[in-house]
Amino acid sequence: MTKNNFDTSAIIDVLKKCLPAGKASIGLHEPCFAGNEWKYVKECLDTGWVSSVGKYVDQFEEKLAEYTGAKRAIAVVNGTAALHISLMLTGVEADDEVLVPDLTFIATVNAITYCGAIPHFVDVEERTMGLDPNKLADYLLEIAELRGTDCFNRHTGRRIKAVLPMHTFGHPVDLDALIEVCQKFHLELIEDAAESLGSSYKGRHTGNWGKLSTLSFNGNKTITTGGGGAILTNDEELGKMAKYITTTAKVPHKWNFYHSQIGYNYRLPNINAALGCAQLEQLPDFLIRKRALAKKYIDAFSSVAGIRVFEEPAFAQSNYWLNVLMLEDNCRKYRDDVLAATNNNGIMTRPVWILMHKLPMFSNCPKMDVHVAEDLEARIINIPSSVFL
Amino acid sequence: MTKNNFDTSAIIDVLKKCLPAGKASIGLHEPCFAGNEWKYVKECLDTGWVSSVGKYVDQFEEKLAEYTGAKRAIAVVNGTAALHISLMLTGVEADDEVLVPDLTFIATVNAITYCGAIPHFVDVEERTMGLDPNKLADYLLEIAELRGTDCFNRHTGRRIKAVLPMHTFGHPVDLDALIEVCQKFHLELIEDAAESLGSSYKGRHTGNWGKLSTLSFNGNKTITTGGGGAILTNDEELGKMAKYITTTAKVPHKWNFYHSQIGYNYRLPNINAALGCAQLEQLPDFLIRKRALAKKYIDAFSSVAGIRVFEEPAFAQSNYWLNVLMLEDNCRKYRDDVLAATNNNGIMTRPVWILMHKLPMFSNCPKMDVHVAEDLEARIINIPSSVFL
Ligand SMILES: Cc1ncc(COP(=O)(O)O)c(C=O)c1O
Ligand SMILES: Cc1ncc(COP(=O)(O)O)c(C=O)c1O
Repeated sequence: MTKNNFDTSAIIDVLKKCLPAGKASIGLHEPCFAGNEWKYVKECLDTGWVSSVGKYVDQFEEKLAEYTGAKRAIAVVNGTAALHISLMLTGVEADDEVLVPDLTFIATVNAITYCGAIPHFVDVEERTMGLDPNKLADYLLEIAELRGTDCFNRHTGRRIKAVLPMHTFGHPVDLDALIEVCQKFHLELIEDAAESLGSSYKGRHTGNWGKLSTLSFNGNKTITTGGGGAILTNDEELGKMAKYITTTAKVPHKWNFYHSQIGYNYRLPNINAALGCAQLEQLPDFLIRKRALAKKYIDAFSSVAGIRVFEEPAFAQSNYWLNVLMLEDNCRKYRDDVLAATNNNGIMTRPVWILMHKLPMFSNCPKMDVHVAEDLEARIINIPSSVFL
Repeated sequence: MTKNNFDTSAIIDVLKKCLPAGKASIGLHEPCFAGNEWKYVKECLDTGWVSSVGKYVDQFEEKLAEYTGAKRAIAVVNGTAALHISLMLTGVEADDEVLVPDLTFIATVNAITYCGAIPHFVDVEERTMGLDPNKLADYLLEIAELRGTDCFNRHTGRRIKAVLPMHTFGHPVDLDALIEVCQKFHLELIEDAAESLGSSYKGRHTGNWGKLSTLSFNGNKTITTGGGGAILTNDEELGKMAKYITTTAKVPHKWNFYHSQIGYNYRLPNINAALGCAQLEQLPDFLIRKRALAKKYIDAFSSVAGIRVFEEPAFAQSNYWLNVLMLEDNCRKYRDDVLAATNNNGIMTRPVWILMHKLPMFSNCPKMDVHVAEDLEARIINIPSSVFL
């Protein structure tokens, strides 16, 4: 095999070399429970504190805030719920537009629609696989118009309220550049940091830059609570509000049930928070292992033709949540061959999400030219990335 | 003490006689984990199947369907989510009205607003503490108008799409009478059976009568999953749709992420379903114990002046989820005294929910005369009802 001939079996060989032998099948990202999970969960069962009562939710929130450097973390039922409430508390209203990458998981965009708002799709850059701030700035110069303190879309007449970038597979977008765009066009910033717990941008944790940001602890994430998520914010008032509105907006009272506004039951059960506390204790170790695996992949694939392993951008320290095999331009036609061959060999791989603007319910949403997203969609393959590999 | 003099300390004495001695404080409804909870949860941790992968969700759904007699049960993240999706799949759309009891927990009404629909408050009857079908029939004769197959509110001009009764504290509403009203006025029936798992109406389980119905497994319910809920239906197609839409509406594929419509992340994590499986095994025993406690309360309070314990309606077998001390008409003024005295004595009690039409966000919603709800609001006190009491 030379660097010039694309060879699917060479890819399988390299993957096998990097991965533990003797396993019939290797998943994409499986949880690792090697710490106090048991102990904490058992305590919940023994005390009967599995639900809204119990100390683990508070503890998990404190530890998350401490770890990410955010002033306040609010544990919720999952990352999708976190996005819904973050958008709402940012002031996104029905018929507003929210700028969001075309290349993202569906939840980012669904949450915008839960507010009655309209997703407006933005292109990504190859360097981060996330939203491209420079391209966005040029685009806004063309289509946006400031009226008072609000930004409007000249073509649709709708207010553009916020930008919702997503740190793809754990790699941070260029936040400084994006914040500049937000300031210039009076847009609020919300980060979908579902995939980037443990990733930092210029030394500060992702999810700590926007007005509100979100995490996910779904079973396939770096740490898991079964299902779960969190809202992060540095604004005390918004933090209080997020807690209030995710717990049915009940005004505290000895016994009365007074709710002052429409609220949600988005609280994370204590038993899931107990898992989260145990997982969070192991996060530093998980990150070392995940970065070591990424390094192993990067080295091993360096000599394979037609493909490279995605490396973190220069300004970032990434969690390498899911590693990416990036097909070279002229090898994109082999994507499905690689997917089929790896999956048939018990090595789970998958392509990136279908671009959002291609889904029927979003096909009429506004969007800019998204050719980089189109390009990456054809070239990305995710490979096994569990911490125990 | 005679039957004529209201005496708060007599109430405390009787409660103390019914409740286990030597406990510093007795909650309203605490969970009981006396079965296979630990075994099943441990299996989740040992296999890593805590999230969407794993067998317990399927098992919990099958067991729930079997137990309730519904064709299909769909486990979801909580009872509020179950209500949201049930309303949606019943065809409730923005600007429709949904008839709902004024006396209910806030979630029932919040879920209506999540669909953009408008709650329309209906009175309850003393016999069930739930929606009064006869009063509703009379009211609809006055305000409703059939056009084609739809029912309209003559005053607001809006379509009235559905009725959403709630089986208060586990006591079934008069379903036969209500179904007659629904048929006459072309209204869909959705039951909020959050509180009535284990309760049947004329021998058939509640939640098995409406087009779709909902359960809750919150920590304070008869069985708990930490947080959780379920949708019940006898319509296979709606059942499939409910599963689909609560799991992000993803079309199954080896690796592609194609979603055909806006969906939700409302799935119940496997670890919570594991708890549910263990709890469901104990439900028959829990019900025996809960009914025994109710009987004990009923007997013990029979000689106490000014108060009686609520008994199940003749057509029902109730789970007695939360027992009710019902103050007699002329003793309602003592409600807060009783609440204060019991809570100060370490016996947790609480009043019923503040009526929905009194909350600021619902104060402009349409409603009928609700004087029975007003009456009961002033007279109900919930007393400790955990299965282990
Ligand atoms: C980018 C992104 N956003 C949002 C979510 C939603 O999180 P959850 O599954 O916890 O609702 C996920 C993960 O599933 C995700 O990858
Ligand atoms: C009548 C009623 N409806 C709905 C709910 C909502 O269920 P959950 O708390 O699981 O969201 C509850 C219980 O909390 C309830 O009592």
